[in-house]
Amino acid sequence: MLDQIIPFAGAPSKNEISQRITNVQSGMADQGLDFYLCVNPDNIFYLTNFANFVHERPFILLVPSKGKPVFLMPKLEEPHVRSRSVGELEYLHYFEFPAPTGQQWSDRLTTVLLAEHKVGIETFCPMAIAREVPGSIEATDIVDEVRMIKSEYEIGRIAYTCNLLSKGHAQLLTGARPGRMIVELHSQATSTMTKRMLMDNPNSNLLNSKFAAIAQPPEISHDPHNFTDVFMKFAQGGPHVSIVSGLANGYGGEVERTFFMNTVPEKARAPFNDMLEGRALAYELTVPGNSMSEVDRKVNDFFKSKGYGPNLLHRTGHSFGVTNHEAPFLAEGYEHEIKPGMVFSIEPGFYIQGVGGFRFSDTVLITEKGNKKLTDAPESLEELTVDGKPSFVDSAKSLMMKVLTKGSKN
Amino acid sequence: MLDQIIPFAGAPSKNEISQRITNVQSGMADQGLDFYLCVNPDNIFYLTNFANFVHERPFILLVPSKGKPVFLMPKLEEPHVRSRSVGELEYLHYFEFPAPTGQQWSDRLTTVLLAEHKVGIETFCPMAIAREVPGSIEATDIVDEVRMIKSEYEIGRIAYTCNLLSKGHAQLLTGARPGRMIVELHSQATSTMTKRMLMDNPNSNLLNSKFAAIAQPPEISHDPHNFTDVFMKFAQGGPHVSIVSGLANGYGGEVERTFFMNTVPEKARAPFNDMLEGRALAYELTVPGNSMSEVDRKVNDFFKSKGYGPNLLHRTGHSFGVTNHEAPFLAEGYEHEIKPGMVFSIEPGFYIQGVGGFRFSDTVLITEKGNKKLTDAPESLEELTVDGKPSFVDSAKSLMMKVLTKGSKN
Repeated sequence: MLDQIIPFAGAPSKNEISQRITNVQSGMADQGLDFYLCVNPDNIFYLTNFANFVHERPFILLVPSKGKPVFLMPKLEEPHVRSRSVGELEYLHYFEFPAPTGQQWSDRLTTVLLAEHKVGIETFCPMAIAREVPGSIEATDIVDEVRMIKSEYEIGRIAYTCNLLSKGHAQLLTGARPGRMIVELHSQATSTMTKRMLMDNPNSNLLNSKFAAIAQPPEISHDPHNFTDVFMKFAQGGPHVSIVSGLANGYGGEVERTFFMNTVPEKARAPFNDMLEGRALAYELTVPGNSMSEVDRKVNDFFKSKGYGPNLLHRTGHSFGVTNHEAPFLAEGYEHEIKPGMVFSIEPGFYIQGVGGFRFSDTVLITEKGNKKLTDAPESLEELTVDGKPSFVDSAKSLMMKVLTKGSKN
Repeated sequence: MLDQIIPFAGAPSKNEISQRITNVQSGMADQGLDFYLCVNPDNIFYLTNFANFVHERPFILLVPSKGKPVFLMPKLEEPHVRSRSVGELEYLHYFEFPAPTGQQWSDRLTTVLLAEHKVGIETFCPMAIAREVPGSIEATDIVDEVRMIKSEYEIGRIAYTCNLLSKGHAQLLTGARPGRMIVELHSQATSTMTKRMLMDNPNSNLLNSKFAAIAQPPEISHDPHNFTDVFMKFAQGGPHVSIVSGLANGYGGEVERTFFMNTVPEKARAPFNDMLEGRALAYELTVPGNSMSEVDRKVNDFFKSKGYGPNLLHRTGHSFGVTNHEAPFLAEGYEHEIKPGMVFSIEPGFYIQGVGGFRFSDTVLITEKGNKKLTDAPESLEELTVDGKPSFVDSAKSLMMKVLTKGSKN
């Protein structure tokens, strides 16, 4: 099953959703829970296909040990919850938040949850919700655990997102030129991805869709979460680090590359190759049966042996699903076994002040025996040294701008 | 002070931030707290000017009873926290999440918080954070309380956002024509607002900026949170309900109108006037010294007396600040006093299946003696019956499309 991936853009079937509920109920049975209470919008989307606006009005999904979930929500939201949700649900609404005593969401909650119930809640659950639960509560991430192993449907959806992102990444590399504003290509590539998604599925939910197609230019690529300057430009040389990531109608992925424009600085060659070597090791290790912690430790040990210890800033990978950043993690100290059907980013990297950042990331499915990349982008230094010369069209545009702005201030 | 509003696009001063910390510390003293722990990104932004990407790696701001806050964060994020933040901070980082025992974020936390400390936490605080706090915890929304009264700086920032939104709203009404896709105008107006913001302050943080400029056409305006169809079009007649809202570099606002295109259906006239009457009552009541609960109750009673009881779906208003939806609320059951320096949406409305939605919303400052709208949009039925005839340019475009697509399938 995990070798035949069919990219898919549509909504889940009732069976898909009911299987997820069954999996959650099975986890609940192991822990002797009467109800499981979800407020995390990602978990609610996973179990209902409904992506909510989260303001201060609570949406609470109550999964009973048997039978269909009860969805508690503001009255205002019920019509489109009904039109968007998939699967069997019992609807329960409250009028408004805040509300007079007796008409609050918590009053409705206690029509379902009783003092004798043992209720599982997410570790994400805010205190304000947890403290209103009658009976005993137990913080346990059952839905997050179920989400770790992807169904055939989910793999198809993630593969679909990865196809969009791979095209967006190609568009970014093709359009990059020294001096061009990165935000310009971000606009173009995200617009292309959004339109493609809407053509493939006109019912796509924009509340649950977002795309980014950016790159860090050489002067800041050593600081991998620095996006503070909106007007950053591509530059001659490198390393640049591209980041194309997104959530297409509820399913996530990412693809990232270290790349150069026209020339490769001599000081960047050895780090680039060392990063590739660490990455090859990560792919070799990220297979069923291995420990997630061990993957990260061995990759970090390899980088440390090459002298990059002080340049490490993050773990080897994270997972995807209904988000593009979630558990499980390829991280030292995270002692869990890698299993078929999981999806990880494999993105070991390091960051050298004065040289730049070195990281590739792909969205990778764990198969029965190994792993398989769902994203696609160039991998060799040759392919990633892109031709950044202004095109004929750019030259013409630039000339036209000069003529049009003649006489205006610089 | 509250009568002289100076719209302002820049970052807060050190003094502005330090005054906020002082206000929080004063609230902490009243409750005998040694530390206050913030994880809500909005509260962290309010107290540091740093808007974070929230993934699974915790950012925790610890405000002590005296002196400067300690900001616990992933190592990866420290450089741009330092470049973005305003005010005195002590930086404390952990390497990664997850991490081996002894190197986790919670290990760092316990270098600051001790077993004998009394620690305030947000009601928003997730269980996963709350349970790692040594010592006794008390869920209390001190920062949210401080945020309720706006400083001169904040009023300037909100007024600035409201100016952008008012322009975006005018652009939406000007461009609306029967048959035109709403998403097309949304793209245009949000792009205009974003560009204007970046021109006024090139350091604006896009992580903390978002704009919407949409409208619900007559067939769904009775269902006020229904945005499920991406391809919705403006239509002849009405009521349409516009929603122009946003967060410009961290400060929020909204402006909304019920409007018509070319003609006003007879059945919509009385509801439109009744809504205006309820709205006038809300403005009269939303003044210093009055109870927030009472405003909503009296407005609802007025609507009920007109027979709209079954058509009510939401409270009269909510507040703005570093979000565009927050406490305090003009809501029955919310027993708090209205004070100068608060900012509310005043948006009483009702929704009639088969007729449509009736609601105006503005962002309104409470002054020493009354209130003052910070947003600006037409208010009369005449001005809100817009000329929706295709323009010459539209006709030419449409003709050109016909020529270009001649022979292609419909």
